[in-house]
Amino acid sequence: MKEKVVLGLSGGLDSSTVLAHLISQSKDVYCFIFLYGSKHNFYENQAAIKVAEYYDVSYKIIDLSDTFAGFKSNLLKTGGDIPEGHYTDESMSQTVVPGRNIIFLSILAGYAWTIGASKIALGIHQGDHAIYSDCRKEFYKAMDTAIYLGTDNRVEFIAPYIETDKAGIVKEGISLQVPYHLTRTCYTDQPLACGKCGSCVERKEAFEKNNISDSILYKF
Amino acid sequence: MKEKVVLGLSGGLDSSTVLAHLISQSKDVYCFIFLYGSKHNFYENQAAIKVAEYYDVSYKIIDLSDTFAGFKSNLLKTGGDIPEGHYTDESMSQTVVPGRNIIFLSILAGYAWTIGASKIALGIHQGDHAIYSDCRKEFYKAMDTAIYLGTDNRVEFIAPYIETDKAGIVKEGISLQVPYHLTRTCYTDQPLACGKCGSCVERKEAFEKNNISDSILYKF
Repeated sequence: MKEKVVLGLSGGLDSSTVLAHLISQSKDVYCFIFLYGSKHNFYENQAAIKVAEYYDVSYKIIDLSDTFAGFKSNLLKTGGDIPEGHYTDESMSQTVVPGRNIIFLSILAGYAWTIGASKIALGIHQGDHAIYSDCRKEFYKAMDTAIYLGTDNRVEFIAPYIETDKAGIVKEGISLQVPYHLTRTCYTDQPLACGKCGSCVERKEAFEKNNISDSILYKF
Repeated sequence: MKEKVVLGLSGGLDSSTVLAHLISQSKDVYCFIFLYGSKHNFYENQAAIKVAEYYDVSYKIIDLSDTFAGFKSNLLKTGGDIPEGHYTDESMSQTVVPGRNIIFLSILAGYAWTIGASKIALGIHQGDHAIYSDCRKEFYKAMDTAIYLGTDNRVEFIAPYIETDKAGIVKEGISLQVPYHLTRTCYTDQPLACGKCGSCVERKEAFEKNNISDSILYKF
């Protein structure tokens, strides 16, 4: 029987590559797609569904919009404008959603326990460490321990790309033939990726570093 | 300015006593009351509201029923019968809700960060360690570390009763004059506490050990 893994799938590059990686390892993957009131949730959500259907894996949509409604972040519909600039700029801290990955992971863990999956996974990576504390390696290790103990030694948290960055992820993704044309990265609520927000800038950089062109369209 | 603490308030003995304890320490307490599809959620929820109003603290109700809908547990409306017997019996493991405290804590942490609270709290205690892995001291320590790192060193997790049991909590609660008559402990969906489920049995024991009578009514 295949090993079950529960994955948080956002529809972006990172988690889509994790999905491809897990499938290449013959895992039985269950995807969770979270709605949490972000400006780009609609387009991101559509992308996540397309990627899950491309790989023919089961997925579950969890609506946490009400839970996140009181949270402070410009990424949310209730927050201010999405800043433009480089991903590591201080201004990008406006896009932090307090506790987001902790919350997603905790739900993945509960579901993993329920269905007898021994692992949960996220696409977090080193490239995000400057601004996003819940993408750092120290957090990853501590959360893995907390989840393992909190699930009575049943569930482990894996983050296959915690030692690399977005360019490294794209490098592996290309060899795994990830359908990057289906993914969505932009933080804005526009149908076409803005090309200017930190998330777009980081995505474009990752493709450039691999000397290949990005297959999605940008407004700028 | 008073220190802010975000507390998970269930309406039971433990979290109600934590609330009294925090107020006695002059903390500014924000309560989160979670709906998660348990059989006793309606009565528990009403109790939590009464306790929060008794202490005149602000509270927020978070409905996670849809999120927990696929989780396996006899405590949930979607599960089987609530077992009767002692709290530490193996049969009580049917009442475990996978990842429940991890999920609650992660949401408390995100909200604490948002409002600038330096602490989140739960009423977990040693007496529950046999069955509930997310009430154990090792879990508490690991989760505290994960939350602290995941919130960029902003939020700590405190569990004032992690070193004691329910009898010890009731002992302090009596001296703090906690309105235990407003609380709800029973796991069943009946208006009157059943007196037979593990949770009722543990509650009755805690009062007996303190040589005082419980002020709520039981069916048996």
